[in-house]
Amino acid sequence: MMASGVQTLETLAGGVTTPQGFRASGVSAGIKARGLDLALLVSDRLATAAGVFTTNRAQAAPVVVSRDHLTRSAGMARAIIVNSGCANACTGEEGAQTARGMAAATAQLVGCGIEHVLVASTGVIGVSLSFDKVRNALPAAIGGLSSANGSAAAQAIMTTDPFPKEAAARLTIGGREATVGGMAKGSGMIEPMMATMLGFVTTDLAVPQPLLARALREAVDDTFNAISVDGECSTNDCVFLLANGASGVSVDEAGYGSFVEALRTVCLRLALGIVRGGEGATKLITVRVTGAVSGADARRAAKAIANSPLVKTAVHGGDPNWGRLIAVAGRSGSEFNLSRAAVTIGPVVLFKDGRPHDEEAPEAASYLQATDVSLTVDLGAGTASSTVWTCDLSAEYVRINAEYRT
Amino acid sequence: MMASGVQTLETLAGGVTTPQGFRASGVSAGIKARGLDLALLVSDRLATAAGVFTTNRAQAAPVVVSRDHLTRSAGMARAIIVNSGCANACTGEEGAQTARGMAAATAQLVGCGIEHVLVASTGVIGVSLSFDKVRNALPAAIGGLSSANGSAAAQAIMTTDPFPKEAAARLTIGGREATVGGMAKGSGMIEPMMATMLGFVTTDLAVPQPLLARALREAVDDTFNAISVDGECSTNDCVFLLANGASGVSVDEAGYGSFVEALRTVCLRLALGIVRGGEGATKLITVRVTGAVSGADARRAAKAIANSPLVKTAVHGGDPNWGRLIAVAGRSGSEFNLSRAAVTIGPVVLFKDGRPHDEEAPEAASYLQATDVSLTVDLGAGTASSTVWTCDLSAEYVRINAEYRT
Repeated sequence: MMASGVQTLETLAGGVTTPQGFRASGVSAGIKARGLDLALLVSDRLATAAGVFTTNRAQAAPVVVSRDHLTRSAGMARAIIVNSGCANACTGEEGAQTARGMAAATAQLVGCGIEHVLVASTGVIGVSLSFDKVRNALPAAIGGLSSANGSAAAQAIMTTDPFPKEAAARLTIGGREATVGGMAKGSGMIEPMMATMLGFVTTDLAVPQPLLARALREAVDDTFNAISVDGECSTNDCVFLLANGASGVSVDEAGYGSFVEALRTVCLRLALGIVRGGEGATKLITVRVTGAVSGADARRAAKAIANSPLVKTAVHGGDPNWGRLIAVAGRSGSEFNLSRAAVTIGPVVLFKDGRPHDEEAPEAASYLQATDVSLTVDLGAGTASSTVWTCDLSAEYVRINAEYRT
Repeated sequence: MMASGVQTLETLAGGVTTPQGFRASGVSAGIKARGLDLALLVSDRLATAAGVFTTNRAQAAPVVVSRDHLTRSAGMARAIIVNSGCANACTGEEGAQTARGMAAATAQLVGCGIEHVLVASTGVIGVSLSFDKVRNALPAAIGGLSSANGSAAAQAIMTTDPFPKEAAARLTIGGREATVGGMAKGSGMIEPMMATMLGFVTTDLAVPQPLLARALREAVDDTFNAISVDGECSTNDCVFLLANGASGVSVDEAGYGSFVEALRTVCLRLALGIVRGGEGATKLITVRVTGAVSGADARRAAKAIANSPLVKTAVHGGDPNWGRLIAVAGRSGSEFNLSRAAVTIGPVVLFKDGRPHDEEAPEAASYLQATDVSLTVDLGAGTASSTVWTCDLSAEYVRINAEYRT
């Protein structure tokens, strides 16, 4: 037991069932040709719930239904049902009925209101999702629920992700321990048209709903919203957070900072897993922009750099091509002062105060051989900064995404 | 001779020296390892001049100098000096001196004011441009000036473009003939860090400067500004237009429409040449967005589609992946109504009124085997439309841009 008042944070192995009072399962419903494709996550008691959804205006049926349920339940939930292999997007009224049917069938078996079930789907766009397959597999999903099956659930939400993404952290608030856990899937579009980022985070803290929603928005902004594989934002992206209070520890304004920090830790590990598992990715690139006039300006420039095919191909090839970083920063729309700007690759300064230091290029090229690399651009305009993460762009990405959907 | 009042437009073989009173040359100054790398374009008389410049905030020295000269001359020019092989960008005060020196040396040999010379550079960023090389080659460039050497100039402005881009058109205004001609270079970044789009357009019409500037902005908006190879905007991009009146035909408000149409024709041919010559490009893609609430919304969605790596790789692979088009249109920020949206690939409707027509996919896949393909997305939100052009994204693009700058 920690001394009262000392706040600590420790990362753990584990996932969505690491926090007390959560059980999960992953089963095969036959939606994918093979493998687990249906995940169920249940809290033993009603939990406060919050969601962050895709900003894409073409929203998939499960996004519309989950948003509606969070509104109708005033942010309370018992269960989340997730299928992979089919996004149930661009599927019209039939798709909406299927998403509502998934929630209703889950609610009946769990024994809760339909508005206390959230739904998520990931997979091919524009293909009908078989409600019968989900309904027939639900009893097995209920039967398999266990605090030991978080990993099975993390497997079941994958489409073509090269590996599952799980993370957990222990925090103390007022000397009492609680945990946060999560799982996510990324966009490994080995089968084209699969581009969904899904995240599911649990905690056994008791967190009032307005605080929970605020914490999720804060944590997502610096983590899931700060990564980019290819600049795309899908029809199905969402992150859910459930807090069931099973630890007996409550978060109020005093413990809020610790909670957000733990949440951010879990979300960042999941988000970086998504980047590392991006299609064709061979490197994790940390892009840091400093010297901006505002945080928004810093983020805009960092995102432009992270999404630049010229930057991503240069890093893929190990080329310390600082001119591309300057050119992208300059076109990003953010305030930029060339005569005070700087580019640093790893520890190597290649451009500073308007002057190139190309003599350092060999050292920077050597640094870029690593798997995890960082690029820093100082806009020379102010004092704000932002960090985003991306992966390199490889010929493998093109091969993966150019193939027929057969 | 045409009957008075009949407006006609005819495309011609030719380039910047097709209009009367323009001479050009292309020589080797030794800036590139081999080949022509210095182009000179001279009007026999003082011409009205207009320029459109990169919006990148990291502007190369020649961009700063040319903009300054156009201001100081109130939009009059005699000559344009252009080098390839070095962008003279991110080169500090030394680079500014070199750009001014190029203009001064050219002015002395042509016999005009320094403010009547425009300067452009394209090539590697962050490397000093040797003023001595340019100065030593200038006499040969002056000596080579000829109305027959437009093609040599078009060769000399290339960096790694796979082919030169020239275009010309004849128009009649009030029954009298005049011509418009142009040359351009694109971003064939086989040697990384070369990303400049340069365009030079001439006409023997007499066009008052305010009208000339307006015409250039209009024509560029639908042509050079409506293309994208990889969404990048360089430190050096610019398009210049000179009108010397040598045809004896004047443009006033009455002839303005015909002039803009001819200008647009020449600029579009040059712009499409840039797209066809994009790195690794195997297809020219026409992206048309309809059903937008405004022209700006239509353009925003069309640009998002044209720059989407998922769309570009799908077209590369011949995959009629309409879901990606819907997803990109939905995330573009433009108004979008999924239940009224439509996707058409060539003549094949794949999604309409919220419903997929996947049964048409084989026909669309067959259509995508062509070299020139069109994608149309109806946003289902209004009546405005926009067209942009791009190329596909190939593994060859990645290979080209991942290589070391050695």
